[in-house]
Amino acid sequence: MSTLEKPQVLGTSIIAKSKFFKVEAVDLLFSNGVKATYERLNGGNGAVMVIPFDGQNFILSKEYCVGTENYELGFVKGKIDDGETPEQSALRELGEEIGWGAKKITHLRTVNFAPGFMSLKLHLFLAEDLFVNKLTSGDEPEEISTQKFSKEEALDLVENENSPLSDARCVMGLHLALQRIK
Amino acid sequence: MSTLEKPQVLGTSIIAKSKFFKVEAVDLLFSNGVKATYERLNGGNGAVMVIPFDGQNFILSKEYCVGTENYELGFVKGKIDDGETPEQSALRELGEEIGWGAKKITHLRTVNFAPGFMSLKLHLFLAEDLFVNKLTSGDEPEEISTQKFSKEEALDLVENENSPLSDARCVMGLHLALQRIK
Repeated sequence: MSTLEKPQVLGTSIIAKSKFFKVEAVDLLFSNGVKATYERLNGGNGAVMVIPFDGQNFILSKEYCVGTENYELGFVKGKIDDGETPEQSALRELGEEIGWGAKKITHLRTVNFAPGFMSLKLHLFLAEDLFVNKLTSGDEPEEISTQKFSKEEALDLVENENSPLSDARCVMGLHLALQRIK
Repeated sequence: MSTLEKPQVLGTSIIAKSKFFKVEAVDLLFSNGVKATYERLNGGNGAVMVIPFDGQNFILSKEYCVGTENYELGFVKGKIDDGETPEQSALRELGEEIGWGAKKITHLRTVNFAPGFMSLKLHLFLAEDLFVNKLTSGDEPEEISTQKFSKEEALDLVENENSPLSDARCVMGLHLALQRIK
């Protein structure tokens, strides 16, 4: 199909920047001769999300989210630092955000976050064989609280459309984790 | 728990802007006295994603994504225009992007896209009883190609970690759709 011949990238420039976001404009020439400028957010090294399971329960976090101006149920996540592997990043975030370590860390899947407008890869991990491992990052304004959910309760979080788990990435990750441990 | 007392929003300002993105800085005072500035993307009216099912097959799109600089398998999606309901937006996008209408449109779930840094709600719909309904939007540089997947193939797209469906929102949406029609 003609639409599968990739457009040519004519040029890329940074058009807006803040402390956390970098917006790029990409000039494209499509195979049919049409020119267009697309915008995207630069996702840096990518990000990780970690789903901790203590053998009985999933451990979810409740953290303040400025997008909804509310505390939202979710999982440990964060950006990958320079020089870190996704696995190292996952274990660091687990210790920094909720004070756990994991002897077993399993890669569940790597997904694109929003390929239409973001160059961000998200690596999903299942963390098992947990032990106490409080690390300090200094970048959390307050302690993140946690809440445990049994496998049955977790299934409800995934399947019930009114469940308090409202973050698309978390719903997907928990579904994958449930498949893995059943 | 003390962490569930919401921080006070001291002020909000736009700190970076492009054609498609608007970055806001939000000054917060947490209940423990810590002040912090969080950034978020303004998600406007929210967005829709539509999963078309023709009674036998799911219809997926293959559209150029500037985030990955590649054609990515996914579903019809788009921003909600001013004055539109999510349902109206879903039907408009379905006609504009891949030329289908639907006599039956079912809300599957509304999710937060990335509540930590985006105020964007994503409304997921299942579209059934399809009919040809080509609408023109004028904002697509080339025709979007489509590909059909049976229910079995769709399940593999959801569960196989190496499947070509790599967009977290699409994986989640297809999983919800499969549950609804089985």
